[in-house]
Amino acid sequence: MLQQSTGLQLRSTVKKEGILELSLASVPIPEPKSDEVVVRVDASPINPSDLGLMFGGADMSTAKVSGALDNPIVTASIPPSMMKSMIGRMDQSLPVGNEGAGVVVRTGSADQAQALMGKTVAILGGAMYAQFRSIKASQCLVLPQGTTPTEGASCFVNPLTALGMVETMRAEGHAALVHTAAASNLGQMLNKICIKDSIGLVNIVRKQEHVDVLKAIGATHIVNSSDPTFTDDLTEALVATGATLAFDAIGGGRLASQILSCMEAAANRTAKEYSRYGSTTHKQVYIYGGLDGGPTELVRNFGMAWGLGGWLLVPFLQKIGPEAAQKLRERVAAEIKTTFASHYNKGVSLAEALRLEEIAIYGKKATGQKYLINPNKGLAH
Amino acid sequence: MLQQSTGLQLRSTVKKEGILELSLASVPIPEPKSDEVVVRVDASPINPSDLGLMFGGADMSTAKVSGALDNPIVTASIPPSMMKSMIGRMDQSLPVGNEGAGVVVRTGSADQAQALMGKTVAILGGAMYAQFRSIKASQCLVLPQGTTPTEGASCFVNPLTALGMVETMRAEGHAALVHTAAASNLGQMLNKICIKDSIGLVNIVRKQEHVDVLKAIGATHIVNSSDPTFTDDLTEALVATGATLAFDAIGGGRLASQILSCMEAAANRTAKEYSRYGSTTHKQVYIYGGLDGGPTELVRNFGMAWGLGGWLLVPFLQKIGPEAAQKLRERVAAEIKTTFASHYNKGVSLAEALRLEEIAIYGKKATGQKYLINPNKGLAH
Repeated sequence: MLQQSTGLQLRSTVKKEGILELSLASVPIPEPKSDEVVVRVDASPINPSDLGLMFGGADMSTAKVSGALDNPIVTASIPPSMMKSMIGRMDQSLPVGNEGAGVVVRTGSADQAQALMGKTVAILGGAMYAQFRSIKASQCLVLPQGTTPTEGASCFVNPLTALGMVETMRAEGHAALVHTAAASNLGQMLNKICIKDSIGLVNIVRKQEHVDVLKAIGATHIVNSSDPTFTDDLTEALVATGATLAFDAIGGGRLASQILSCMEAAANRTAKEYSRYGSTTHKQVYIYGGLDGGPTELVRNFGMAWGLGGWLLVPFLQKIGPEAAQKLRERVAAEIKTTFASHYNKGVSLAEALRLEEIAIYGKKATGQKYLINPNKGLAH
Repeated sequence: MLQQSTGLQLRSTVKKEGILELSLASVPIPEPKSDEVVVRVDASPINPSDLGLMFGGADMSTAKVSGALDNPIVTASIPPSMMKSMIGRMDQSLPVGNEGAGVVVRTGSADQAQALMGKTVAILGGAMYAQFRSIKASQCLVLPQGTTPTEGASCFVNPLTALGMVETMRAEGHAALVHTAAASNLGQMLNKICIKDSIGLVNIVRKQEHVDVLKAIGATHIVNSSDPTFTDDLTEALVATGATLAFDAIGGGRLASQILSCMEAAANRTAKEYSRYGSTTHKQVYIYGGLDGGPTELVRNFGMAWGLGGWLLVPFLQKIGPEAAQKLRERVAAEIKTTFASHYNKGVSLAEALRLEEIAIYGKKATGQKYLINPNKGLAH
């Protein structure tokens, strides 16, 4: 039974003076409507996709902290060049956190809502870096018996993104996939899906230790962009798999360009005659992350049959429709301890998430440095 | 009646030593098959799209000429970085020239072919920088009575590309267009089409004289990328037109990125709430030329709903199918002296086209420096 009437919530504000402020607000726990439930959030991951909203374009190397240890206020400067794209959120105190899992502690009067009382559920929809989150009962993904909130914390963003890549590949007529930053939690899931579903996957990583991580889970094609033979290795893997679609988490630099260039070289291996405009094979790269926020550089030595674009989970789910999306969610719940298992480097409370030494680590978005927030850690409830 | 049995043809060879060679070959005039005709090519434009095949990636500032004045041989060095993409054409003597117009001087036995004898026709298909070109009768676009080969020389590449932009806009659900290098022959055609068909068009040019050219033909939205107010001007024009699709002839540099960024700013003018991933309006830029061969730089400050890609005429025509393509061709023939009229800076013979001082001019692909080759100029026939 839920006794308290307020809960802490992590907030991010971009001030028009060019300052980001992160703080913990005490907010009333809303009375659930008939079809709603209140979830006590016990686990919510810090995904790279959360950091854009949370950091608001600020240069976190300028961050300072003030206030009490259990109620810190972090401020940081936002470079003037970033302020233009912040106009839409100026001076608004915004909650953060895309997804999480926890236990239903209060429900509305509807049967569907009451049926969830005490259940462990996974939820998506923002404002998860909070002790409590009210949400429609229909939006709760009930986790299989014996699943902890920690195990179910990352049911949506990474699993559905990985499944979305495979579905996009099928819908757009490609035979195999390329993935960058491939040793990430998401990348490991994608490998497990592709192995299970017999789909060719070329993994691009930047470090030998990441090659080892992927080898250990049975990945076949792994190329290291730090190797001097990188573009040759990549071309061979593309010839072997026939991959003409890549999902790139990096964004900045020349990696997308190199992928397109190697896809073109692979396509030309089998070309019968010279075409002045390059191969007629359509080569596509979707940027779905921004691990490198710098400019994307395209050398354009890959003919004219190519595309580059942004890819986001939510528009993808809207495109395939609610029925197809629900099927993907059910697969995630069923395989949450195997295919879609996530690993975290560290668990922190809301207040600990605002310590500068922790921000310095998870702010890097580095593979193997994933954080899990437990908003109720160290707090009575 | 055609008396001679051979004709000159401009040839381009990439030698594996990294040398480009341009020369004039004397080739037999083929006996037309039943359904073919032989066209005496009297006018063939040098389009930017011809120069890729012709120059083979060579650095034309290194060009040297040898041989007789009427039979010159031009050689130039190809930078090693360009040689990889030349593998498919190595040591092959390739004919050049996408399109042209002339008079049918010999025909096959089929009625359709014989009906063309003496007619002035426009043709597309390569190898047009030649005195004679044999081609299927069905591929000839008969020009309206009173049309000269010079007037009909550019019936395909520019007119169909301009029409293809408008058709692509409609097919992909955009409301208006952006075009770069907008004072070009192609850009002027696009303005005439858009004025006639009441389509919003934002013209991006680089010089005040190009603003004047477009004003003179009645263009409404003209922005100069050399102005300090460029991005503001562009954003206002995008708000006014609602354009979310651009065709870019430049390719290199940050222009495509600026267009996407201004489209995003225009979309956010009407956005109701802040979205961390930017507007949900899909913004698209197609690169259809490479006036700047340098890398394309994307700053990615335009959300996630965007695409960039290559766009080519021939795949577009294949996509819309032969019937729709024929309708476009017929519109071009009907409006060849008005909407689709081209202007040339200079007419040259095949030999003159290989003079270094001419290459230095048309090789720049600058607006207002367009050349027309008359392969039969100064030669008896």
